[in-house]
Amino acid sequence: MKLKKNLYTNIGWEVYEKKFNKQQVVNTGSRYLLGNGYMGYRGTPCEWNKDQYVGCFISDTYDLADGRWRELCNAPNGLYTKIYVNGEEVSLFTGNVIEHRLKLDLKCGKLSRYLKWKGKNAGIVEIKSEKYASYHDIHLLAMQYSFKTEKKADIRMVTGIDGRVWDLNGQHLVDKEFYQKNNLLCSTSYSSEKRIKLDVTEGMCLKAKQVVSKEILNKGDRILRELKFSVASGDEISLFKAVNVYSSNDVSKPLESACRGVSRALKNGYEQELSLHENVWEDIWDKQDIKIKGDLTSQALIRYNLYQSMIATPVHSDSLPIGARGLSCQAYQGSAFWDQEIFNMPVFLYTQPTIARNILKYRYYTLNGAREKAKRLGYKGAFYAWVSGKTGKELCPSYFFENVITGRKIHNHFNEWQIHVSPDIAYSVGEYYKATNDWQFIVDYGAEIIFEVARFLYSHAYFKKDKNRYEFIRLLGPDEYHENVDNNAYTNYMAQKCLQIALKIYKKLKDENPQKLKTLENKIKLKKKEIENWSEMAELIYLPQPDEETKLIEQFDGYFDLEDITPEKLRKRLIDPEEYWGWPNGIAVETQVIKQADVIQLFCLDNGFNKEVMKNNYDYYKQRTQHGSSLSPSAYAIIAANNGYLNKAYKDFIRSCTIDLYSTNKSISGGTFIGGVHTAACAAAWQIIVRGFAGFKLYDEKISFDPQLPASWNEIKFNMVIRGCKLFINISKDEFKLKMDAKNENSIKVKVRDKEFSINPGEKKILQIA
Amino acid sequence: MKLKKNLYTNIGWEVYEKKFNKQQVVNTGSRYLLGNGYMGYRGTPCEWNKDQYVGCFISDTYDLADGRWRELCNAPNGLYTKIYVNGEEVSLFTGNVIEHRLKLDLKCGKLSRYLKWKGKNAGIVEIKSEKYASYHDIHLLAMQYSFKTEKKADIRMVTGIDGRVWDLNGQHLVDKEFYQKNNLLCSTSYSSEKRIKLDVTEGMCLKAKQVVSKEILNKGDRILRELKFSVASGDEISLFKAVNVYSSNDVSKPLESACRGVSRALKNGYEQELSLHENVWEDIWDKQDIKIKGDLTSQALIRYNLYQSMIATPVHSDSLPIGARGLSCQAYQGSAFWDQEIFNMPVFLYTQPTIARNILKYRYYTLNGAREKAKRLGYKGAFYAWVSGKTGKELCPSYFFENVITGRKIHNHFNEWQIHVSPDIAYSVGEYYKATNDWQFIVDYGAEIIFEVARFLYSHAYFKKDKNRYEFIRLLGPDEYHENVDNNAYTNYMAQKCLQIALKIYKKLKDENPQKLKTLENKIKLKKKEIENWSEMAELIYLPQPDEETKLIEQFDGYFDLEDITPEKLRKRLIDPEEYWGWPNGIAVETQVIKQADVIQLFCLDNGFNKEVMKNNYDYYKQRTQHGSSLSPSAYAIIAANNGYLNKAYKDFIRSCTIDLYSTNKSISGGTFIGGVHTAACAAAWQIIVRGFAGFKLYDEKISFDPQLPASWNEIKFNMVIRGCKLFINISKDEFKLKMDAKNENSIKVKVRDKEFSINPGEKKILQIA
Repeated sequence: MKLKKNLYTNIGWEVYEKKFNKQQVVNTGSRYLLGNGYMGYRGTPCEWNKDQYVGCFISDTYDLADGRWRELCNAPNGLYTKIYVNGEEVSLFTGNVIEHRLKLDLKCGKLSRYLKWKGKNAGIVEIKSEKYASYHDIHLLAMQYSFKTEKKADIRMVTGIDGRVWDLNGQHLVDKEFYQKNNLLCSTSYSSEKRIKLDVTEGMCLKAKQVVSKEILNKGDRILRELKFSVASGDEISLFKAVNVYSSNDVSKPLESACRGVSRALKNGYEQELSLHENVWEDIWDKQDIKIKGDLTSQALIRYNLYQSMIATPVHSDSLPIGARGLSCQAYQGSAFWDQEIFNMPVFLYTQPTIARNILKYRYYTLNGAREKAKRLGYKGAFYAWVSGKTGKELCPSYFFENVITGRKIHNHFNEWQIHVSPDIAYSVGEYYKATNDWQFIVDYGAEIIFEVARFLYSHAYFKKDKNRYEFIRLLGPDEYHENVDNNAYTNYMAQKCLQIALKIYKKLKDENPQKLKTLENKIKLKKKEIENWSEMAELIYLPQPDEETKLIEQFDGYFDLEDITPEKLRKRLIDPEEYWGWPNGIAVETQVIKQADVIQLFCLDNGFNKEVMKNNYDYYKQRTQHGSSLSPSAYAIIAANNGYLNKAYKDFIRSCTIDLYSTNKSISGGTFIGGVHTAACAAAWQIIVRGFAGFKLYDEKISFDPQLPASWNEIKFNMVIRGCKLFINISKDEFKLKMDAKNENSIKVKVRDKEFSINPGEKKILQIA
Repeated sequence: MKLKKNLYTNIGWEVYEKKFNKQQVVNTGSRYLLGNGYMGYRGTPCEWNKDQYVGCFISDTYDLADGRWRELCNAPNGLYTKIYVNGEEVSLFTGNVIEHRLKLDLKCGKLSRYLKWKGKNAGIVEIKSEKYASYHDIHLLAMQYSFKTEKKADIRMVTGIDGRVWDLNGQHLVDKEFYQKNNLLCSTSYSSEKRIKLDVTEGMCLKAKQVVSKEILNKGDRILRELKFSVASGDEISLFKAVNVYSSNDVSKPLESACRGVSRALKNGYEQELSLHENVWEDIWDKQDIKIKGDLTSQALIRYNLYQSMIATPVHSDSLPIGARGLSCQAYQGSAFWDQEIFNMPVFLYTQPTIARNILKYRYYTLNGAREKAKRLGYKGAFYAWVSGKTGKELCPSYFFENVITGRKIHNHFNEWQIHVSPDIAYSVGEYYKATNDWQFIVDYGAEIIFEVARFLYSHAYFKKDKNRYEFIRLLGPDEYHENVDNNAYTNYMAQKCLQIALKIYKKLKDENPQKLKTLENKIKLKKKEIENWSEMAELIYLPQPDEETKLIEQFDGYFDLEDITPEKLRKRLIDPEEYWGWPNGIAVETQVIKQADVIQLFCLDNGFNKEVMKNNYDYYKQRTQHGSSLSPSAYAIIAANNGYLNKAYKDFIRSCTIDLYSTNKSISGGTFIGGVHTAACAAAWQIIVRGFAGFKLYDEKISFDPQLPASWNEIKFNMVIRGCKLFINISKDEFKLKMDAKNENSIKVKVRDKEFSINPGEKKILQIA
């Protein structure tokens, strides 16, 4: 079934393309990305090199090479393989490409390729390959490669490690060495800044009748085996390549580990390694999959997005961020933004809560970075980095856009004014606790995060004595076109949530873990007076209220006084199409045109707004939103779905799910790579379905559903884990079916539409909802 | 003695030029401006018209014609006079100008002209004229005009009222009528907005042997007498013209008043009217003059500036502002800025305190405008307009600069963020009381101003609970290149002064005028709690302190973190020389380059800083100041003089005094008239001498002097009025002489350098200060 243009799915478990498009080299690599949270391997054919943006990005290899941007290292490409048939290079850019297919198998994260190619002397050559980044051994890349020729031919195959890697900002790997060790090829290099050692080891097993010559070519920037042999017409020659990547941040002896890993894989063989890898994916899908009946497009899209969300997440670690572009490239520095908690985390929170726990533990480990930032800017507590890498120090520079008309740098204040990331994290800790009942996490980690954020918020706020309220001044809300605003509704509400959670947790700690509380109080020098302050601030913080008549919530002080114009009309004011729309004098600054959902985003996180308020604000803000952020459509989709705007919700679901898959945007702008996978939007797809169409909400004492499916969907099925209890949910247009795993220990209170009930282990409920 | 290029003085009571420069038409009109506070008559030869920016600007005729800018009306020119000799027009732009002199007599505000001209047929013609705007009858313009020819000639003279006036923004006078009434010519017109009636009446008296023909030419836009006669070689023909201007804002029957005025003047004759006018000037100089021995340049300059300061000031009224360009043109809308109290007022406060009283009464009458502005922007009390006309409503638009690179309008926030004008006014009320002891003024007017400003400040301030202090956020200080700053030192200190004055006055009212206080409290609904609030805020307001080591006061939060670069180097970054340097993205915004004195300006108003602090800050800020404002050099001159930087002080004294006199700047920029007289800088010249070189300071209980004269000055002499007592001050390099008028009623405490003493009526003190 055709999804769009050159993209297809047959069973909703795969996406594939039938034609090669030279213009889409960057999108190809991102679209068919392989990965396992440890590494991301771009979905590029094995004969490509840095010119086609081949990349293998390794988590936890942050390096600063140009003095400005710290980003992940791109490892030498151990899967590099190319053949020459009768002297002709088989390539997508030479000869005659008769057929070329790429298929991403979502079920097991495997990329298959089929090339039918014709050369002058070579005749027709067919190549088949498949590869994956193993979830069983996260250091392993494996490729099965085979080819045959139409006629008898002399073959020259070069395969090995290509160290000519592509970097965005500065050369990250230096002192590269390429060498042979026993039957393996090795590359050792070091990151430029902290000399992280990075070892890539390659081994292979060729099944060919007779290899005439075999030589190692060490060219200084790559090491290759040159294999020469003859093939008869129709002979299938097959090659299994196993590559391991290790850094000295992973193990103390990365070379040894890598050699061991490759040897083991070679011994196991391709199929057995694949099977181990598939087992892990089976388990993942068992927990995460959403089955959609009636709409194969939606089915494929949700799985594609869940796949991308999964492989972007460093599940092997509790101290690494989810990159805003995952491991698909170096853009966005492999770093966490507010996306991580608000967009990436929920799918894990409700399906694999230990991953959510890891995500939050990362924020615990980066508390010192956040404390430093707060201190540097004159605040107390923890002010989380807008762009957060390994240590949590602020990576976001003050100047990154350019005024394309004057050529002058633009000073943005994302790092200083976009404070909502801190309460977003605190809120998410609270949500984690609500969803899991994991009090021990709060005791050990969560309380400290939340207290430090509350402390930060108090030190940031101003008190207006004449109005008897706390205010936040000089903010940048989710809508990044309006910097330097006061009382951004989203931020103020989230701040209140953080303070309320802090107070609740403080009380519970005092009641239940007084000794632990004392230890924590001593550790962070928390004073009683501070708790009183938070309590006062939680009560007196200014929360912009819905207008009595219009029900509109003002995004920030004075927003409604700005010029009211549509994004389309506004666009016509651009002098240069590349102009930045925001601060300090972009075309949107003095208008009501917003980059992305802001008040609407708040509704996704706060159950306290009624439908009239949500609808009116949706109607108002939607048409003023330019969707300059990939985070925008999902919020609109969720709130539309929650309020009966099913067509609109469906459209934004599709829009949000296809930001990467359907992207034909140019990926290089002004010399800067802006491609890569929008992992937050990918993870948000799950939220659109579960929070949006299924209408799921989490409360302290219960969960609730208020489902409304799009016209084309007949049924959705998915599993959730709530407070340790596994739930099987099946929603059709008429019925809501809920089953509770017999292994669960507790019962759960559930509300579906207006009906509230308890469900017990092993129990099944069917409710009519038509 | 030559002052500069084409400018001379002989006795320090005049400035004159010997050559006519066609390029300097606008500067000529401003430089030799006549006026009396009721009207400003540009110093243009009588045959010029709107093309040479002839102007007669009438106070209290505010008119909005283009929907954007409200400005004063330019009245039809009643002095218009031109002669043709043997058919040739005598003009500076035709024929051969042999000699042309313009002399402004500062002693009596009179402009003399001498033209020696040669035409083809006319031969040599000599014209002499003098004119003044009377201080005796402020509605009167008088001109004595005479000419003679080298040879017998036929003369055609046209003289009357030229209604072809020049307007900056829209046509202000409409429905113009020109007519004859008895022997007078009249022009009646109406302002476009409020139909203020404006009457100009002209009468004349020609002394010529025989007038051959006399006709009235009514051309719709002017009314002229055409006089034809013959003259013999060397015959001196003389003409006396008397013009009256009245508006319906002055009297109920302006035409009648104007006719009466002209008739009386014609009856009195030129000389008698001049003598009445001169008497007033004699009195003004008796109060205001500063005599400087040893430096004729300085002598002429101080008198020139005092002259301009005087004629800009509407002393006939207590409800009109001093225009930032006085009555020299329509630019700056004839409106008051903070200049009025901080720059214009002091010279009057200490020499003619009733004028200072009128200036402050204007602020009392405009309280409602300030209240409205505060309310509109969400504050309480009185937020004075940045640009204040008759009513005190904000006249400053939000958009007035243009981004010359993009052609887009720039949104500045002078009107919203430059709040210091309000405490500046309150402070000046306090200074008025300190200098005059006029408690009745405080009771009747001053208290209400100060209380309302204190109230505004309280409603504007934020309280930082974690720092236990009040802060001001989102300010624009005197340095207008840095908008949107927090805790501008100048503003915060001035705010504290206002609060302290408010508390002092409240207490005194309570003690001495409890009934009056009660009335005022009822009127403005002042609550006890508010006084407590002010008291707390006066104590807890954040005042940026001098750094312990460097002694530097940070101009605003984060100023020292900005890029440190000199104005000269910064200028090189301009893409277009016309670019605005300030908000939001001008080249100065992210640097420490400031437009004008800011911290240094504070030192001029606050006696509480020691020399080390003043010197270090002077040294630091001076080299970072671009002096983009005419208000800047005077502050630097005062603080330099107070701290022994005598050469620097002298240089800035000259610079400040010659902003207009030496100006050769183009006066039209991008089609906009930016010429006119900088009245604040003119008045500040007095402050540089008295506060700067004489080191005068006013305290609650005493006055003090700490004199240091520039190298070239041998002696200065001036008079002051302190608390009703007239003082004669005479300072040489060695001696400080102080005499107190015998008519005074009280003694005064004086401190000179370190010596403190009381001086009694009639007493004389001589102190050695060498």
